[in-house]
Amino acid sequence: MADPRFFKAKGPFPLSRLAEIAGATLGPGADPNAEFTDVAALEDAGTAQVSFLDNRRYLAAFAKSQAGACVVHPDIADRAPPGMALLLSEAPYKAYALIARAFYPAEIAEPGIHRMANVDPTAQLAEGVSVEASAVIGPRAEIGPRSRIGANAVIGAGVVIGSDCIVGVNASLACCIVGARVMIYPGVRIGQDGFGFASDRAGHTKVPQLGRVLIGDDVEIGANTCIDRGSASDTVIGDGCMIDNLVQIGHNVRLGRGCVLVSQVGISGSTHLEDYVMVGGQGGLAGHLRVGAGAKVAAQSGVHRNIPAGEAVGGSPAVPVEEWRRQVAVLRRLAKRKASE
Amino acid sequence: MADPRFFKAKGPFPLSRLAEIAGATLGPGADPNAEFTDVAALEDAGTAQVSFLDNRRYLAAFAKSQAGACVVHPDIADRAPPGMALLLSEAPYKAYALIARAFYPAEIAEPGIHRMANVDPTAQLAEGVSVEASAVIGPRAEIGPRSRIGANAVIGAGVVIGSDCIVGVNASLACCIVGARVMIYPGVRIGQDGFGFASDRAGHTKVPQLGRVLIGDDVEIGANTCIDRGSASDTVIGDGCMIDNLVQIGHNVRLGRGCVLVSQVGISGSTHLEDYVMVGGQGGLAGHLRVGAGAKVAAQSGVHRNIPAGEAVGGSPAVPVEEWRRQVAVLRRLAKRKASE
Amino acid sequence: MADPRFFKAKGPFPLSRLAEIAGATLGPGADPNAEFTDVAALEDAGTAQVSFLDNRRYLAAFAKSQAGACVVHPDIADRAPPGMALLLSEAPYKAYALIARAFYPAEIAEPGIHRMANVDPTAQLAEGVSVEASAVIGPRAEIGPRSRIGANAVIGAGVVIGSDCIVGVNASLACCIVGARVMIYPGVRIGQDGFGFASDRAGHTKVPQLGRVLIGDDVEIGANTCIDRGSASDTVIGDGCMIDNLVQIGHNVRLGRGCVLVSQVGISGSTHLEDYVMVGGQGGLAGHLRVGAGAKVAAQSGVHRNIPAGEAVGGSPAVPVEEWRRQVAVLRRLAKRKASE
Repeated sequence: MADPRFFKAKGPFPLSRLAEIAGATLGPGADPNAEFTDVAALEDAGTAQVSFLDNRRYLAAFAKSQAGACVVHPDIADRAPPGMALLLSEAPYKAYALIARAFYPAEIAEPGIHRMANVDPTAQLAEGVSVEASAVIGPRAEIGPRSRIGANAVIGAGVVIGSDCIVGVNASLACCIVGARVMIYPGVRIGQDGFGFASDRAGHTKVPQLGRVLIGDDVEIGANTCIDRGSASDTVIGDGCMIDNLVQIGHNVRLGRGCVLVSQVGISGSTHLEDYVMVGGQGGLAGHLRVGAGAKVAAQSGVHRNIPAGEAVGGSPAVPVEEWRRQVAVLRRLAKRKASE
Repeated sequence: MADPRFFKAKGPFPLSRLAEIAGATLGPGADPNAEFTDVAALEDAGTAQVSFLDNRRYLAAFAKSQAGACVVHPDIADRAPPGMALLLSEAPYKAYALIARAFYPAEIAEPGIHRMANVDPTAQLAEGVSVEASAVIGPRAEIGPRSRIGANAVIGAGVVIGSDCIVGVNASLACCIVGARVMIYPGVRIGQDGFGFASDRAGHTKVPQLGRVLIGDDVEIGANTCIDRGSASDTVIGDGCMIDNLVQIGHNVRLGRGCVLVSQVGISGSTHLEDYVMVGGQGGLAGHLRVGAGAKVAAQSGVHRNIPAGEAVGGSPAVPVEEWRRQVAVLRRLAKRKASE
Repeated sequence: MADPRFFKAKGPFPLSRLAEIAGATLGPGADPNAEFTDVAALEDAGTAQVSFLDNRRYLAAFAKSQAGACVVHPDIADRAPPGMALLLSEAPYKAYALIARAFYPAEIAEPGIHRMANVDPTAQLAEGVSVEASAVIGPRAEIGPRSRIGANAVIGAGVVIGSDCIVGVNASLACCIVGARVMIYPGVRIGQDGFGFASDRAGHTKVPQLGRVLIGDDVEIGANTCIDRGSASDTVIGDGCMIDNLVQIGHNVRLGRGCVLVSQVGISGSTHLEDYVMVGGQGGLAGHLRVGAGAKVAAQSGVHRNIPAGEAVGGSPAVPVEEWRRQVAVLRRLAKRKASE
């Protein structure tokens, strides 16, 4: 159960309502009127709490859980301990997400500008905007309805932010236009100059970076992640992209809809990812590449060529994932042979 | 063309003036008096705009570009679409950089200390310094002429910053001495303790870190990059180094002149890079190494030995780049043979 | 010798006192009453200064050092230059650390709340707390005795910080409970949402992250490092852990006591490290793994399976370190054979 010092649960909700919220079916014998007060992990949950099982690694914890109710896939229903009410779903993790969001809806900040915030008189703040202490909002910036600007964040001149966004504490935005319902985590850096210079024997000559960062709707950008603005064209982050912490996105990169970049990924300049591309943690992509829709790049891979839609690649340099597995297997076998020589 | 919400172009300039600025030659038939109002990417440029071609990947875009003028290498001149004025240069990217800088010179901040900044009375600010909202400048710090300290940045006690520097928003500097014309991007961390401790069964004993960070002239340090101060001697960043975002530089590291570190590179403690070393994205160098002048380390490489001047290395552990290519080729061939077994 | 602009030495101390502090033995002929004023690196130290030798790479510098005294292992005593007083220790680096800490004890900030700090009236600050300019302390936060909150840091609602902690400038803490003597470096992000969402064709559904971050005593967390809070259970950092800069720690990760994570390491969600695990720079661990006590993961390794206690692994995917060395050797040999074909 969540620490009340940090989280406050709504509810209680009857099981029937939770099933409805989750799009789940009640398991046999479950009491639709039983009331639940919270969600909790399998090992922590008590009889008034709802848990979930989504990963077979945790089957043992499921079998001995005290949770009053649990969201599970129908295939696993028969492994439940006696007395546990089941919420059956083909997508138990999503079903759990929806239930947890019922108990813990996104907090709405109290609107208003903190007396120690610093909002330029030419900035435009829509209704319901909240600006926390020591935040700075530059000239001509536009902040959409109900968006919240965290303490010590800095919104640069002319930046446009849509409705219902959260800009985390100590984050900074410049030269960017942001959609609706975007969550920008603490320490994010958006819109600074890209890494662009022309080099010769006399040294490095900086190239002015004259593009923007365009961010769609429903995007998440993780803590301390950096997104450089475009050099001539724009850097673009499509609707629904999920970007983890400490990710680097170079100038002129374009992400389609729903791409997922796990922590510490780096995307070099001018590389385009089509819709729903996934890149595992610490993966790196060289510049000027094109990655097709739905492609998957394994963690720590190094991509140096275009990837067709739907292809999964791994390794550094990256190759199709079956080939990568064969490379790993061959090398292991050769090393073992050597060991036994 | 750059979004006027964020960028304001100088100009217009006649073509002859742009050629002079760029050190370029007018192509046959180009009108030296034609006026240009802006720069733009090949696909976006119109007849009053100047573009450039530096990468053969974009030859198709060049051939159908509407740009009124374009900076290109003489070898490609014959691929230009009819009617496009050419600015011929052996170094088209640098030539373009110079033209773009004419249209968009570095903005000069209005001097002055924001009423919500916090400058210690013992700090010394030269003429033309600008200190933005909620920035903090510690005791005895010295800020050189025309340098700008961004909002929410923190300059520690005794720090010295030269002339014409920019310290980005939310950046922090401690125990460091910085040259002239240095650009420090948002969220950069300079001069905190290095990762130094002595370990035994009783745990880890912190070793006081008593060195500084010394930064030369004309250096760029990318967003959220970290540079630890020296432990006994200093951490040194030579003149003209270009350091990208999210780079880690350990204590006592020394970079010569003009080194280039791409995003997410990590340099471990006490490693020395001589002049003009380049390290590709996510490359890592172990501690106490020496990398000779002009050496090149490929992206994602892991360097565990000294590298002679001029050598290019790749792989993890890194080997000379031709050897690395052979390793990759051999492994691919073996894996394919296995697949066909 | 440390730059007095940034560091002020205590002392002088007689050699006998330094030997006592360091648990070291005086070498033959050393004058116990000789006074020393500072520590310094071998190449910089003068006759009134104490240096140390801990790495045989620096034997040449040792042999010609001007240091008046030096901490060394007894085995190397005979390589000392004539006239140098020796402090003999089986653990010279730790002995040096203790001496350096005598000259440079941790600075104690003057207690008090800066007039431009922003402390919520419901926050509880113990005696001796210092809060610097533009720092923000949220409702119901509790700050322990003598802890220091750096300029522009943000302490979220309900956060608990123990005694004698330092929160670096521009750092942010939320949903966490922190022990005593914890050092949090500038730009650290603790307690933000983990990267948790359920994905299907309709897109990504955010899962509320309802856990906390629990941090033990005597922990260091390096600059710009990110530690996400737990999703259902907590993210836990054990006593005495040393975490370097730019490290990523996912939700529900648990570190035992005394773990060492070098810069740019990434630990994915729900992975547990037992006591004294070490992970080299840029190493990555997949999620839901268990790493046994004392295990070592080489720099840039990619770990995809559980690791038994005490095992050392390397490579990506990681294998036992002897096997990894054989893999590297085999591949090198094959590549050389190919070159000579």
